Amino acid sequence: MSLNGENHDPRAAVIGLGSMGFGMAQSMARSGLEVVGYDITENAVARFLAEGGRAAQNLTDAVEGADIVVSVVVNAQQTEAVLFGPDGIARAMKPGSVFISSATMDPAVARSLAQRLEALGLHYLDAPISGGAARAAKGELTIMASGSPQAFAAARPALDAMAAKVYELGDVSGIGAAFKMINQLLAGVHIAAACEAISFAAKQGLDLQKVYEVITASAGNSWMFENRVPHVLAGDYTPLSAIEIFVKDLGIVQDMARAERYPVPLVAAALQMYLAASGAGMGRDDDSSLARLYAQLSGTTLPSKS
Amino acid sequence: MSLNGENHDPRAAVIGLGSMGFGMAQSMARSGLEVVGYDITENAVARFLAEGGRAAQNLTDAVEGADIVVSVVVNAQQTEAVLFGPDGIARAMKPGSVFISSATMDPAVARSLAQRLEALGLHYLDAPISGGAARAAKGELTIMASGSPQAFAAARPALDAMAAKVYELGDVSGIGAAFKMINQLLAGVHIAAACEAISFAAKQGLDLQKVYEVITASAGNSWMFENRVPHVLAGDYTPLSAIEIFVKDLGIVQDMARAERYPVPLVAAALQMYLAASGAGMGRDDDSSLARLYAQLSGTTLPSKS
Repeated sequence: MSLNGENHDPRAAVIGLGSMGFGMAQSMARSGLEVVGYDITENAVARFLAEGGRAAQNLTDAVEGADIVVSVVVNAQQTEAVLFGPDGIARAMKPGSVFISSATMDPAVARSLAQRLEALGLHYLDAPISGGAARAAKGELTIMASGSPQAFAAARPALDAMAAKVYELGDVSGIGAAFKMINQLLAGVHIAAACEAISFAAKQGLDLQKVYEVITASAGNSWMFENRVPHVLAGDYTPLSAIEIFVKDLGIVQDMARAERYPVPLVAAALQMYLAASGAGMGRDDDSSLARLYAQLSGTTLPSKS
Repeated sequence: MSLNGENHDPRAAVIGLGSMGFGMAQSMARSGLEVVGYDITENAVARFLAEGGRAAQNLTDAVEGADIVVSVVVNAQQTEAVLFGPDGIARAMKPGSVFISSATMDPAVARSLAQRLEALGLHYLDAPISGGAARAAKGELTIMASGSPQAFAAARPALDAMAAKVYELGDVSGIGAAFKMINQLLAGVHIAAACEAISFAAKQGLDLQKVYEVITASAGNSWMFENRVPHVLAGDYTPLSAIEIFVKDLGIVQDMARAERYPVPLVAAALQMYLAASGAGMGRDDDSSLARLYAQLSGTTLPSKS
């Protein structure tokens, strides 16, 4: 293996070692990539080292010699800081290497970040992810990707390692982000609808287990109803995905829609409920906590944790 | 076969020969019941006769000697008229016979109708249906039923003939209706969300077939997205289920929720869109016409019928 040559295993840097980035780094290491991780928080780095990962002390060290940089940070602001902030990696990345951007963001921002990075002779793959931490750890994510053929080619070893399914949605950045936002629009509204419905069923004294059985077999079903309502039935609001995620994502949808003069009354109604849940102190709890908000607002009793 | 005895095939009357009632009558006849149909509109009766059905001239004739009356009318008002209106059948039904009520309605109204009928020595089965005309014709509906054991026992031959799945949800009327309203809440909101999303995708110039492929494999999926968005992709708004159905059903949910002091912001937002679609002239078109409404309101072009 040569450190500067053509035939070494691809080197990947993972920026952000939260539950998703941690699993994605593991999946890449398992499939033979040489992986270096970095996170701004010491706990995340310590956990990564404890599992046998190699960590860098700072962003610049992390991307040194990397063919692929996978960014698994929270939002557009953090992505921009990673690339172009005071310690940004845009000027440290190896010529011809690719930046794979996972954060959910406004497509216009993804386009802009890509253009700025491409102007420096680097590749940008707009690649939002779907699937939870468990699937990240197994290398079975779904990735909604768009970018230049060169970006796809450079990113391929990482994509193959991280994902069960890669949708190739177009040859410019922004398209992947737009697909992700359509998914988040639906997911966010469906969670709110599921919570509005299950707490309304509780208000009427219906057998909630039976409601779950009937609805999941009927035209009222959604992926989110099926996935989130069991949390409500168990009274367990341990965060698998927090209320604040949809405060952020439906906020992005609403901002995009306002800019495009497109009305989104369902998104607007759902966003208000996420905001109210967060304001009432449930921002870091599971997003099925919307059911508890509806219960509070109507004097309804939901199952409690046994 | 005796006309007044114990051992004849059960006789069933079907009130309302629309697309659902027509199929339900066929299913019962196929399974050996003696079926008489009735509808207030001559066209529906003529179609039923043309297919070999037996039709009555009026409500009283229809239910004469019937062990089972299946009511497949549109709403609570029509159901009440069938039972207790000027030509109502409540006083003409055979003692011990059962009235199977299919219309979607407020559970409180279902309870009240049941109590009034039971006071006359008759049985009432609260039995909203789910599944379209095709499944009605095949005897493969889903029925969400509640009522007394005697009502279930008397209704059994008809339920077996009409449904692939009968949920037995409780021993008093109103519970079946409440389950149906929870389903309609979700179904109505999910159609609106699907249309908000697919037209927003069109506004951004995304490949809508690809959006359908990605979303139906992702966490943003719903039964309604999967079922209704193909109408939008085909530009075909021939009504399989009309906008007006959800003007009615989300209106019932909103009235129930207001009476119970339960806030339903997602239902409220969706209902406004169904009202706007109806007000804009699409009330009798397919409910996926909400996508056309969003398109009109944002200067977006959707696929047109080829």
